[in-house]
Amino acid sequence: MGTIERRGIMERLDNGEVVIGDGGFVFALEKRGYVKAGPWTPEAVVEHPEAVRQLHREFLRAGSDVMQAFTFYASDDKLSNRGNTASQKFGCTNINAAACRVAREVAQEGGALFLGGVCQTPTYLSGASKEDTKEIFRGQMRAFKDEGVDFILCEYFEHVEEAEWAIEVGLETGLPVACSMCIGPQGDMHGNSAGHCAIRMARAGAKIVGVNCHYDPFVSLEAIKLMKEALERENLKAYLMCQPLAYMTPDAGKQGFIDLPEFPFALESRICNRWDMHRYAREAYDLGVRFIGGCCGFEPYHIRAVAEELAAERGRFPAGSEKHVVWGGGLKMHTKPWVRARANREYWENLNPASGRPYSSAMSKPDNWGVTRGNEMLVQHAHETTTEEEDLVRGIKDKLKTACCQHHQETKKEADLVAAAQAVTETA
Amino acid sequence: MGTIERRGIMERLDNGEVVIGDGGFVFALEKRGYVKAGPWTPEAVVEHPEAVRQLHREFLRAGSDVMQAFTFYASDDKLSNRGNTASQKFGCTNINAAACRVAREVAQEGGALFLGGVCQTPTYLSGASKEDTKEIFRGQMRAFKDEGVDFILCEYFEHVEEAEWAIEVGLETGLPVACSMCIGPQGDMHGNSAGHCAIRMARAGAKIVGVNCHYDPFVSLEAIKLMKEALERENLKAYLMCQPLAYMTPDAGKQGFIDLPEFPFALESRICNRWDMHRYAREAYDLGVRFIGGCCGFEPYHIRAVAEELAAERGRFPAGSEKHVVWGGGLKMHTKPWVRARANREYWENLNPASGRPYSSAMSKPDNWGVTRGNEMLVQHAHETTTEEEDLVRGIKDKLKTACCQHHQETKKEADLVAAAQAVTETA
Amino acid sequence: MGTIERRGIMERLDNGEVVIGDGGFVFALEKRGYVKAGPWTPEAVVEHPEAVRQLHREFLRAGSDVMQAFTFYASDDKLSNRGNTASQKFGCTNINAAACRVAREVAQEGGALFLGGVCQTPTYLSGASKEDTKEIFRGQMRAFKDEGVDFILCEYFEHVEEAEWAIEVGLETGLPVACSMCIGPQGDMHGNSAGHCAIRMARAGAKIVGVNCHYDPFVSLEAIKLMKEALERENLKAYLMCQPLAYMTPDAGKQGFIDLPEFPFALESRICNRWDMHRYAREAYDLGVRFIGGCCGFEPYHIRAVAEELAAERGRFPAGSEKHVVWGGGLKMHTKPWVRARANREYWENLNPASGRPYSSAMSKPDNWGVTRGNEMLVQHAHETTTEEEDLVRGIKDKLKTACCQHHQETKKEADLVAAAQAVTETA
Amino acid sequence: MGTIERRGIMERLDNGEVVIGDGGFVFALEKRGYVKAGPWTPEAVVEHPEAVRQLHREFLRAGSDVMQAFTFYASDDKLSNRGNTASQKFGCTNINAAACRVAREVAQEGGALFLGGVCQTPTYLSGASKEDTKEIFRGQMRAFKDEGVDFILCEYFEHVEEAEWAIEVGLETGLPVACSMCIGPQGDMHGNSAGHCAIRMARAGAKIVGVNCHYDPFVSLEAIKLMKEALERENLKAYLMCQPLAYMTPDAGKQGFIDLPEFPFALESRICNRWDMHRYAREAYDLGVRFIGGCCGFEPYHIRAVAEELAAERGRFPAGSEKHVVWGGGLKMHTKPWVRARANREYWENLNPASGRPYSSAMSKPDNWGVTRGNEMLVQHAHETTTEEEDLVRGIKDKLKTACCQHHQETKKEADLVAAAQAVTETA
Ligand SMILES: [Zn+2]
Ligand SMILES: [Zn+2]
Ligand SMILES: [Zn+2]
Ligand SMILES: [Zn+2]
Repeated sequence: MGTIERRGIMERLDNGEVVIGDGGFVFALEKRGYVKAGPWTPEAVVEHPEAVRQLHREFLRAGSDVMQAFTFYASDDKLSNRGNTASQKFGCTNINAAACRVAREVAQEGGALFLGGVCQTPTYLSGASKEDTKEIFRGQMRAFKDEGVDFILCEYFEHVEEAEWAIEVGLETGLPVACSMCIGPQGDMHGNSAGHCAIRMARAGAKIVGVNCHYDPFVSLEAIKLMKEALERENLKAYLMCQPLAYMTPDAGKQGFIDLPEFPFALESRICNRWDMHRYAREAYDLGVRFIGGCCGFEPYHIRAVAEELAAERGRFPAGSEKHVVWGGGLKMHTKPWVRARANREYWENLNPASGRPYSSAMSKPDNWGVTRGNEMLVQHAHETTTEEEDLVRGIKDKLKTACCQHHQETKKEADLVAAAQAVTETA
Repeated sequence: MGTIERRGIMERLDNGEVVIGDGGFVFALEKRGYVKAGPWTPEAVVEHPEAVRQLHREFLRAGSDVMQAFTFYASDDKLSNRGNTASQKFGCTNINAAACRVAREVAQEGGALFLGGVCQTPTYLSGASKEDTKEIFRGQMRAFKDEGVDFILCEYFEHVEEAEWAIEVGLETGLPVACSMCIGPQGDMHGNSAGHCAIRMARAGAKIVGVNCHYDPFVSLEAIKLMKEALERENLKAYLMCQPLAYMTPDAGKQGFIDLPEFPFALESRICNRWDMHRYAREAYDLGVRFIGGCCGFEPYHIRAVAEELAAERGRFPAGSEKHVVWGGGLKMHTKPWVRARANREYWENLNPASGRPYSSAMSKPDNWGVTRGNEMLVQHAHETTTEEEDLVRGIKDKLKTACCQHHQETKKEADLVAAAQAVTETA
Repeated sequence: MGTIERRGIMERLDNGEVVIGDGGFVFALEKRGYVKAGPWTPEAVVEHPEAVRQLHREFLRAGSDVMQAFTFYASDDKLSNRGNTASQKFGCTNINAAACRVAREVAQEGGALFLGGVCQTPTYLSGASKEDTKEIFRGQMRAFKDEGVDFILCEYFEHVEEAEWAIEVGLETGLPVACSMCIGPQGDMHGNSAGHCAIRMARAGAKIVGVNCHYDPFVSLEAIKLMKEALERENLKAYLMCQPLAYMTPDAGKQGFIDLPEFPFALESRICNRWDMHRYAREAYDLGVRFIGGCCGFEPYHIRAVAEELAAERGRFPAGSEKHVVWGGGLKMHTKPWVRARANREYWENLNPASGRPYSSAMSKPDNWGVTRGNEMLVQHAHETTTEEEDLVRGIKDKLKTACCQHHQETKKEADLVAAAQAVTETA
Repeated sequence: MGTIERRGIMERLDNGEVVIGDGGFVFALEKRGYVKAGPWTPEAVVEHPEAVRQLHREFLRAGSDVMQAFTFYASDDKLSNRGNTASQKFGCTNINAAACRVAREVAQEGGALFLGGVCQTPTYLSGASKEDTKEIFRGQMRAFKDEGVDFILCEYFEHVEEAEWAIEVGLETGLPVACSMCIGPQGDMHGNSAGHCAIRMARAGAKIVGVNCHYDPFVSLEAIKLMKEALERENLKAYLMCQPLAYMTPDAGKQGFIDLPEFPFALESRICNRWDMHRYAREAYDLGVRFIGGCCGFEPYHIRAVAEELAAERGRFPAGSEKHVVWGGGLKMHTKPWVRARANREYWENLNPASGRPYSSAMSKPDNWGVTRGNEMLVQHAHETTTEEEDLVRGIKDKLKTACCQHHQETKKEADLVAAAQAVTETA
């Protein structure tokens, strides 16, 4: 953990190294009991810092090279949205500063970097002006600068316009800025292609660009591939980053896993296993991605799988491999002989895991409301959701179901599935 | 069944009528015990004409407006390929003539048209010259002309070049020529897009163009859609025809259902039901397809479903609806009350049928050898497949499995599935 | 086809032979356009004898040793139930006599036996007396006797009591009587175990007992196994017969496939393939069943698979094997080399066929109304189902859905699935 | 957190309270990077006590009334089995004492009880004598007694004989003893029925009996039901406890999830969601189970779901519900309106979650070696697994696959699935 580890993010990337990110704190801490699903805000870093610290340590141990301060959605507009009282109780600055301190502390234990992140805002979705939106980002960035983060991450944007504004504010800090959008191969909510989004992020000044959240590793890499091709066409230089879901989403629509009926409380049967992550790490690396991490659903063992797959390239195993042998080798110590017979790569690489759910299907049909920035239902407000609003959204749901019946939806979907499957098989 | 029925195929189409085709005789008669899977040749029309006649009658009764003589693969090169003795025993001309007579007889019972068809030849696949290949088609066309067919169908071509040659020979008869290829949205085996194939078929002189076999109704319509757009771009006038499989194939690759591991003896769990065919008929009609039929897997009741869906547009129900009430209405006469509760469209239109196979998945990975015209393994020869050849192909199968492991295949496939699913959801 | 074939059913069985039955005419002819789903009555044998004759020939060719006259539900009460006019137009006696003549004609073409069958009656379900019910059977039996059938089959009974009454009437003819019930391992609708039903059928005088319809081959054999054990415990001598569905029904409840939501118009994805039938034939034979046939869903090629599996035991292949090579051997003549690589038993025996339906599950939850004999909704009446009755049954359906929610149903089902799976694995 | 919480386990149960257990530390800590899959031993409690403490706190917060010291497999024979060095480095006593201290510390933070547990031993599986086996348990119990645990849990036994021996040693401490076996409805590895196992545990002196691990909640409750009936038949008084997997296992065989091909590294797609746990808690409560917890796969949010389902019965919500609103209520604060439309019980209770894996099936076929106590391959030894041993077990695996082909396995399995499904539907 000597001198070499003090080098910054750009030095590492310029040196050809793979930087391993961490996983999604919001989902992991929701399962541990510290984050509320719905608002998804990070005030737990003030209320229960020991829980956040422990999760940082687990990712560090798993091989993460960067500790992302737990600041997701920690802007005052989100902290006070729809009945949330976190803004009032703690406030954006306190939360961001506390998150930085916890991240820095753990980062220093293992020679990792630490960073602060901002993401899309209710302010923007409500249709506010560029300056008003940038002011929201500025509030968060100040805390990052004061706490001495190593770099800035602007992430989880559905509209490239807002991502550009965030990058602009990030650059005001003088620190390197990375930017990733929560989009797939279809591009952003304003109809910009994935490639065009990459170009705009790079032109706005992000040194590292890519995607995070919303899609599984393999869909996300499809989006990255389009980004890479666009950047090359335009002769733009930017490192690629990928921090996908740890949920399988071949059936997700344009708004990603949020549209899937299982979001957020029944995603379990879609969780990726460690072998999926080996494959993800290998394909990301082969595609040229050098910032490889995860988002919602990633647990420490998923990151460890990434670090183990790339151990040869990185010249080291993560600390957590003390308790893991690659490709199931630990099973040689299992009591049952038929489990010992599974202690090899061939077994796990070829296994197609069953769901254990005979009444469930392979795919779901996503909700597809298609509302985005400016729609009244997305507007930020401080009061709780009223019964009238509840009735409204449930009514819309039922109406959509009727208007665009299953029959019709299926037609389109199957046709496209076929087209995709064909395209694939040809090249495989 | 008066004067109006004597009108030819072009008169009917020019008059804006929907022409309903029939189903796949080869597969239907294989299940009835009269066709051998493997060679798939139609000598049964000589050996057991009563079985072929009965199947024609069932399709006529189901609503078919055209009786396709059972001449599939009835060219002498195919009838003598790999140990087949049908050429020697009966010969191309006898089989084609006999098939025409049976088709004509039944057509006359119901005011239908009858036609002769040719399809792709081992001669072409072996790399023979244009003239040699055309001579094969000429042998078949002569019988059609002699027997007075109403029109010619060139179908089941994987290479548009061979389709063009067949059309040219068809035109020599002076009769209208229709042409359909067994391709999907990915185009033909020589890399020609579906749209380009349509243009070439139309330019070669086919008045009706489209696809048949190899893909399910909904994938097939995707290909037709591409054809339609291309024809419109080029200002070419041709009627569209669609005669798809009655097997669901969202996972098929470029060579269609032949590549799927279930082909040809375990396709049962993929069979379309009558409600799938209602959907198919409606979508085909809405897309502008006016020759709507079926290929392998279509049984008479599938065609009846097409005719019932389009009964309003056609102004009549098929004779076979004597024994069927649309949308399950016959169940009102069922003994059990809970089955009577199913006598309505809403029930059937929204049902997602289960497979009853808890160890089976939704999709399979296709074989994908990618060999086509000119490859030694496709060359026509008279002798039976030898043990050495058998060992060779089984060896290749094993080798491909290893070389391009499941792991790798899946990556690509899933990524494309995602892309497709996204594209779809957006527009749905 | 010499003297030996004139021997009766009992001579054959006593001689240790396997007798192969035929398949389900009602379902096969519904798909061909000659039978109406709902009433399911066989007047087509008068209206379209050539269609019935052709189907008999196909089964004969596939290996059936017995031709069952197409007399299903041909009792006057059923022929006039709920708006059916077949009783009035043709009448029970005409239909049964015509069916016998067609069956006899084809049987004589191939040295097969022919038989007449009766099945459960609306009269019994309506709660009529023993004598009234027996009189219904007598009407049918008279025609059988007059036409010279080789033996009588009483089949498709849900209540052993009614089966006994039918057997008694059958015995009045002086011919051998076989009897099979449409029950599974759970027994009949009055709570009699499968074993007890077998005992009562044998004691009533049936020389051959077993099950038909309602369950897939493997569930049906479980019921047969219970019957066999019960007969042995009681030292009763009777041959075992099995004529199951050709639909996979691991999820069916006590009333069999009729309760499954896919019945009768969306069962396609459950259809058994020929390899399932090889397995069925082998397991039936090993269990000691010597009358091995099929019911709804069985097509000629399914019966051919049974005959091919037992070719060694029977010393012959069926005539239809002229067009089939066991275990996929015909594929050696296929054009595509990767399909030629499938020309072997190992390939087909180990294939798990996909459904091609990514939005479908493996299992469905059956309706489970639990109404049986005597319930008002089952009562026979001549008039058509009224709108009031329709509303009633659809209302009950909705109510049951609410009362016994999916949540609750699933609990029970899964628990039992587990119990079953465990029981199985232990012995496998 | 006053006086009432100091009451012991028997007082609470005698008072009619529901006691909520915790989840499986071994699996949870493997994913966090502190336990090695294969040996599964708990030396992490000495190496990384902060990680173990944090997990205890999360379960406490989720509603657990008892803190189980992390002592799984902490007997010296297991700690030195097959290359494990934990015995040598730390030793049984140190590990057990450290685990007790951590558990006690957290228990005191929330008025919970704490307990020590023992489980099945390599010594017993190797065929050692009763006294030798009991001596292994005594080593662990001494530490429990010294550290002042509130009660003893003997758990995870596959043979009731070993469970009895453990109970006997437990009683030597003078503390209440609970005992659960890792069996399903099929009973133990020596052929003792689940009911008989319960009787023997109760007669041996366990005040609380039940099952843990190896099966999903609903299969486990089937086993408990059999235990309950047996205890009632024998007029034995014992409280019932259930601590199942959080993995769906309808397809598991007699050795439970260890036999499933997904064990232990690809179980993700089988993970239960919180709504499954609501159902589990309700059904367990209705069956009379009063010690309701979890084992492998249970995360804190699963236990919270149990506590929320039983909040009315217990008169309180867990602390962790600060960050959770029952039945998805937190989604009222979500940004997207279509997600707000999911903020209700009806939505989640009726959702059938998809797997996102189109090449996967619903069920797997378990390994089924059937080796148990006394088999050479189960014998404890200190050296690592050799290459010869590896080859041996992989060879056996291949051989079993051939000998008992998929074909054959499936037969049996399906038949039983059917039997189960039928049994269920009848009563649903
Ligand atoms: Zn995320
Ligand atoms: Zn075809
Ligand atoms: Zn039937
Ligand atoms: Zn466990």
